[in-house]
This record gives sequence, C-alpha cells and structure tokens, in this order.
Amino acid sequence: MISENTIGQAIEDLFRQIEFQAEPAGLYDPLRYMVSIGGKRLRPRLCLTAYGFYKDTLGPEILQPAAGLEVFHTFTLIHDDIMDRSPLRRGHETVWKKWNQDTAILSGDVMFIDACHRMAQCPKNELPAVLDLFFTTARQVMDGQQLDMDFEQVPMVPMQDYMKMVGLKTAVLLACSAKTGALIAGAPAAHCQALYDYAYDLGLAFQVADDYLDAYGDEKVFGKPIGGDIVQNKKSWLIIKAYELAPDSMKAALYMPAETPGQQAGKIAAVKAVYDAAGIPELARTQIAALHESALGKIRELAPEAREVLEAFARKLVGRTL
Amino acid sequence: MISENTIGQAIEDLFRQIEFQAEPAGLYDPLRYMVSIGGKRLRPRLCLTAYGFYKDTLGPEILQPAAGLEVFHTFTLIHDDIMDRSPLRRGHETVWKKWNQDTAILSGDVMFIDACHRMAQCPKNELPAVLDLFFTTARQVMDGQQLDMDFEQVPMVPMQDYMKMVGLKTAVLLACSAKTGALIAGAPAAHCQALYDYAYDLGLAFQVADDYLDAYGDEKVFGKPIGGDIVQNKKSWLIIKAYELAPDSMKAALYMPAETPGQQAGKIAAVKAVYDAAGIPELARTQIAALHESALGKIRELAPEAREVLEAFARKLVGRTL
Repeated sequence: MISENTIGQAIEDLFRQIEFQAEPAGLYDPLRYMVSIGGKRLRPRLCLTAYGFYKDTLGPEILQPAAGLEVFHTFTLIHDDIMDRSPLRRGHETVWKKWNQDTAILSGDVMFIDACHRMAQCPKNELPAVLDLFFTTARQVMDGQQLDMDFEQVPMVPMQDYMKMVGLKTAVLLACSAKTGALIAGAPAAHCQALYDYAYDLGLAFQVADDYLDAYGDEKVFGKPIGGDIVQNKKSWLIIKAYELAPDSMKAALYMPAETPGQQAGKIAAVKAVYDAAGIPELARTQIAALHESALGKIRELAPEAREVLEAFARKLVGRTL
Repeated sequence: MISENTIGQAIEDLFRQIEFQAEPAGLYDPLRYMVSIGGKRLRPRLCLTAYGFYKDTLGPEILQPAAGLEVFHTFTLIHDDIMDRSPLRRGHETVWKKWNQDTAILSGDVMFIDACHRMAQCPKNELPAVLDLFFTTARQVMDGQQLDMDFEQVPMVPMQDYMKMVGLKTAVLLACSAKTGALIAGAPAAHCQALYDYAYDLGLAFQVADDYLDAYGDEKVFGKPIGGDIVQNKKSWLIIKAYELAPDSMKAALYMPAETPGQQAGKIAAVKAVYDAAGIPELARTQIAALHESALGKIRELAPEAREVLEAFARKLVGRTL
C-alpha cells in the first residue's frame, strides 16, 4: 500500500516536471499554460490511489498513464471552452481567449495525442485492456459534451437524461481513472469493477454537489460567483427538479431574462425563491447523500485500509454539501 | 503475398461497411458523411500493401488499423478545414460549413478517438511499437499544421522549412501507414524502415507534384480550379523556388492582390509568367523525379515482387507530372 502523502507528492512532482515539446511554440505553449494553472488532479489521484492498494512503489508504468488521464481531461476543457465561449477557467483566461480559436483547436488536438501517448506507456500485458477502457471512456466524454450542447437547444430535459449526460461527461472519466490504476496493478477483476462503480457514483454525487453549490455555496470556497448556472440558463439538477416539482404558477421565474446585472441579481433571487419554496436544496442534499452512500456501497469487498482511504476521499469531495 | 486486387476490394468493403455509433446523431452523422464523400484511401492502401508482402490473408488485426489510419487522416481534414476556413472538400461542403464549427470540433475529436480505438485492435505483441509510431506521427502531423499556419503570417519561407513542413504534414503519415503494415506483419526491422523511408520520400514527391499541378495541371484531371495556391497566396514549392531564383524586378508579381475575379485571373497569369521565365516548371519536375527516384532507392533490399508493386504505386501517384 502506498500512502496518500507519497501519492500527493508524486502528483505534485509529476505536473511540476511534466514536459512538452519546445517547438513550434505556438502549438505547445498553451499546453504548458493549461498545466500551470493547476486543477484538483482528481483523476491521477484516483488512478494512483487505486494502484497503491495493490503495489508498494510508483514507477513510470503507472505515473505516465496517471498523467495521461489529467492531460486528457485538460484537452477536453480546452475544446469545451471554445464551444461554450467561456472566457475564464480556474480564474485564468481560457486558451481560445488568450491566444485564438485556431490555436485552441490544434493545441487541444496535440494535447489529446500527448494523453494517448502517455496512456500507451503502461505495461504491455495490460495495454489492450487499459486502452480499450480509455478510448471507450474518451468517446463517452464526447457523447456527454454533445448531449450537454443538445440540451441547450431545448427548454427543459427529463432528470433521467440529465443524469445520463452527467454520467458521460463527468463520471466515466473518474471511474476510468480508478479502474486504470487497478488494472495496471493487476488487481482482481471484481476489484477493478468495484473501483469503477465507486468512482462513477462519486462522480454523479460530485456533479450534483457542484450544481447545489453553484446556487447555495460560499463564493469564497466555491471559487466562482454564486448563481452562474441560473444566470446562464444552464440545465442543472436543481432547475430540473424545480421544473418537476414547483407549481406551474411559479415556473415563469425559471425563464426570466438575465441580460443586465440588475436582471441577473433579480433572476438569481427569484429562482432561488422557487427552489426554496419547492424544497429543492434539501432534496439535492438528500440526492448527494444517496449517491455518496451508493459509492461507498460499491467497495464493500475491498480491504479495510483501502475502504478507509476511499471513504475519506469521498468525504473530502462531496462532504462539504452534507 | 496478397494481390492488389484483393487489397482494393478489401478497402472498398472496409469503408462501405464501416460503422460509427448511431447516437447522439449530431456527433456521429458528420463521421458517416466524411467517409461517404470518399478519398483516395492512400494510407490504408500503403498499410495493407506492406502487410501483404509478408502475409497471405487479411483479418481484422490489420484491417482495423488500416481503417484507423484513414479515419485519423479524415479527422485532421475536419479540423484543418475549420482553421483554413475551407468551404469545400473533395467537391462537397466541409463539416463546419454543412453543420457548424462546434460540431466540426467535437465530431473531429470523436473521429480521432475512433481512429485510436481501431489502431489499438492490432495484435498485442505489436501494440506498443505500432502505437508509439502512430502517436509520434499524429503529433508530427499537428506540428506540420501549426508550421503551415505560422507560414501564412510571413511573406516568404526558406525552401528547407517548407520541405520540413511538408514532411510533417503529409509525408510522415504515409510513411507511418506503410511501416504499420510491415510491423503488424512481423517484417524484419530493416524492411519496416525501408518502407517508412520509401513512403516518406514519395509523400514529399506527391506534395511537390500537387503544388506543380495546382499551377500547371489539367483542371479536369486535377479536380480543382488551376491557380488556387496563387490566388490564395499559399506557400508552395513553386513560389518559394521563384522567390529564390527570379530577379528582384519580377518579384512584385508574386505579391499582387487577388480579390476580384479579374485580379485573380491577372495574378495567375502574371505569377505563371514569372515561373516560366525562371524555369520553375522544369525545376519542379526535376525535383519530383529526384524524390521519386529517392523513394525507389529506399526499397532495394525488398523482394522483386514487392518492389514491382511499389514502383507501380509510385508511378501512379506522381507519374502524371513526369
């Protein structure tokens, strides 16, 4: 078993020392930039944590794929930010905004190639299974982004479709990260699947928690202005649930315009009033707790020390909402 | 040895029967569209031809990677067409023009994933070498596209830089295609390298021939209006050579405006007059012949039947300019 401290240090070293080609600079500078603006590194952490349950040391055969998962995630952010016209990411300018759109397309492409190349550094025996999982997951993430964009074109979507989109866009990559670590460590198939299922449910819980905090969080902790989803008319767990439960007479508030700053503040207050009246915040917390619980239920067969680490990880990730 | 007829039929079947996911349709329809508008399928042909020198039958372990090379090439076209603002590809609307830019970005991404997934179907023993070559090549193709875009920002580039860009953007993928077939067939390392070098030189010859035909070809055979590179101020072998050799007094013609149809026709005539005066067409044909010859020089150690097939392939690809 590898300690969480060792893993934390390894992740820090990995991304401080990560190297991309020097030239053409116009292509690779955005990669260095995106890695430098940080991130929670959840995917390498899940990968290395799962690996560490079965192994005692970290070598390139696991560190490179762990980095590849984060690099892949970062590639999706570069392209998503173009499609979503987002000017900011983690408090910094997005690549298309800082450079231009063509640079963001091509730098994203080469970042994805870099991710694949790192994934392919895993041991030969595990390579077919690891790559099959990775490419299947990558395709699902794209399917999720497409559904997310499709949802922008319709006034409302059923909760079931929303959760399917979240599963594809967010949960499968976390699940793939945990399972990849287990696969490379040569863990039993049942454990590989349990770790996948745990991280999948946790990914769903994380997204519902993110939706909840977007309306009810503390701006200083959340890191973004509260009410962003409401202002942008983004589909979220809260608004879909409100659409299901709120009386028709209140639904008009969900579609108020939000162009001027005054309209935005008014809309945030009005929509949150609908949420409060329909008991949405409590329902969201109940849903997060249920998904959190479900995640923990998936790892019952793992060793007690492993369960303890994963319980702490889950608490840290979604516990702030409970 | 597998006959060229068998390979031709296999390629036709492969792309007639190729399947992509049904849903979300917004994401996968552009993939079906791009495959349906055809192409010369040079990359799968080189791959299967090289494989066929050492094997007698075609199975999925070679057909899937062969398809993957073409799917990868098609992905690069989808993204290049966004960056180059090209409205047409092979006489049909480009994906960004027919759908929209976001669709072109995301469908391109998922097409690359599909390509990787097919490459990964090769036999486990060859997987590390095949993927290492493929991802290295993919990165080089992106480097080439970046250089091509960088070149648009400067009035002229040295011939050496232009040929380096052509090598990255066009030649390495043809070289990778031939070598992949040989690797999967378990060919000797020297043959793998010879096939790589042959296809690389042939790729350079092909691009110089394309530049030549863009100015001196027969529109009906070439498939595009003659003089396109001149009108678009595109860097080409011809203009770079003219810039090297033409007297300064004639160089102004190379930078004439070409906005109205009248200006365009005038510019094409004026630039071709500079080319003719400086003997550029003959020099281009000499260069193509030298690269063609160099390609054939790389395969001297291969079996006579193999050399014969590759000689015929090279003649078909660049012979029309000689």
